[in-house]
Amino acid sequence: MKINKIAGDDILEIIKSKENRFYKKLKKLKQKKYREEEGVFLAEGWKFLQFSTAPVSIIYEEGVDTNYIELGERFDCPKIYLAKNLFSEISSQENSQGVIVIYKIERKNIDNLSENIVVLNEISDPGNLGTIIRVVEASGFKDIILTKGSVDCYNEKVVRSSMGSILNCNLYYIDEERLVEFLKERGYNIISTALDDSSIPYTDMKLKDKNAFIFGNEGNGIKKWIIDSSDEKIIIPIYGVAESLNVAMATGIVIYKVREIINMERGKNV
Amino acid sequence: MKINKIAGDDILEIIKSKENRFYKKLKKLKQKKYREEEGVFLAEGWKFLQFSTAPVSIIYEEGVDTNYIELGERFDCPKIYLAKNLFSEISSQENSQGVIVIYKIERKNIDNLSENIVVLNEISDPGNLGTIIRVVEASGFKDIILTKGSVDCYNEKVVRSSMGSILNCNLYYIDEERLVEFLKERGYNIISTALDDSSIPYTDMKLKDKNAFIFGNEGNGIKKWIIDSSDEKIIIPIYGVAESLNVAMATGIVIYKVREIINMERGKNV
Repeated sequence: MKINKIAGDDILEIIKSKENRFYKKLKKLKQKKYREEEGVFLAEGWKFLQFSTAPVSIIYEEGVDTNYIELGERFDCPKIYLAKNLFSEISSQENSQGVIVIYKIERKNIDNLSENIVVLNEISDPGNLGTIIRVVEASGFKDIILTKGSVDCYNEKVVRSSMGSILNCNLYYIDEERLVEFLKERGYNIISTALDDSSIPYTDMKLKDKNAFIFGNEGNGIKKWIIDSSDEKIIIPIYGVAESLNVAMATGIVIYKVREIINMERGKNV
Repeated sequence: MKINKIAGDDILEIIKSKENRFYKKLKKLKQKKYREEEGVFLAEGWKFLQFSTAPVSIIYEEGVDTNYIELGERFDCPKIYLAKNLFSEISSQENSQGVIVIYKIERKNIDNLSENIVVLNEISDPGNLGTIIRVVEASGFKDIILTKGSVDCYNEKVVRSSMGSILNCNLYYIDEERLVEFLKERGYNIISTALDDSSIPYTDMKLKDKNAFIFGNEGNGIKKWIIDSSDEKIIIPIYGVAESLNVAMATGIVIYKVREIINMERGKNV
């Protein structure tokens, strides 16, 4: 039985028992396996109620600020109230606002990729992934491919640090082994960020009609064979004692440069 | 009595008592007030042993990896060993490596500022400040002025997320009220990042001989009167549903653009 179906039964009641069927199912959504099974994910914080994406249901903590309840009213979906002790077990925030929004996981067709895409090779930190989703979406790009083995993009911390941008991005997982072939078959110019002597400064990168910008794992970067199969290798020059930049920061700097280049080519400002 | 003096007495001994005078002093360094009194700060993690900056002393956890002890040998400073239960109270990391380096707080003369500086108006999140220090230093700039009321730059989380860059930056605090006057007196072109209708895209900013790039508080941005007193107002255009970028990300994108512009003017690549 699906969350939204069960939720329907409980609407307007306050769930107080830990044995409640809906509550037990809700708790399981903190695990990737169950999120995939149910096809939904949790997004905590009232800010999510501002977005136009329709939720599957909205979970409120008993005694939640009525302004948040009002914000949620525009959505014709089940609203479920949880007793404080139950809510706190679902919440992943220290100072929770008492609002968790449940969204459907949208599975997009990977054959409809846009011209410029971001590829993440084994990103492991959820905060980094959320920050990357936020900056990629902010810069006007939408498609992000993750190699399998990367952190789950519907992890609560990813969702939170994306600040809502996850609702406006297309996220795909692909086997690492298939990545290069997949991109080449579709005519993508593969641009890898690599701390490599033969890398050129990112400000010199040459874009083609279709470009895939690859960023790598926090500790190990992009797999060597993927770097070696790339069309271009770029680097963000480091002038200080800092060994490197955080991968989310690197993605932001490169992707906004890509936006600038594309806009210049189109004859308009960034 | 100064930490390094006391430390000298305890060298090569393992401190086991919570009543030990040095240990009690060490614990207090987790508070800003005592860091200022002692003129030192804590930097956790063996990576700090890689930098050339001479520590005041090095704190090891009993049973620490001998590779780290060896790394520390090149520094002629007291090495103090703490029993596990004592070390864990000083450590701010879940999976500690058993190394905490104590450095002297270097107070630089604010009259020796370089041509391009970063100013932070009430940054409150230590992770953000550390990330900003890291990217500013990576892009080859050194001077960061914080308005009083910003988070303490020697907070352990700031130090950690700076990834060592804090050792290579000059950090100054100034009263917010004095900021604009201070910058104008010294001939700085004041460039504020503001989500303002009259802001120009950051890619269009015009640099002068001396430039101060101001970034604001996480929630509220730069104080209005400071924005109004600026010579230029810039914005990083947002194309998605994201309302804004994280301030550390915004700093990174702008400061690497500044680096690119400066290098182009000097006729070399970024």
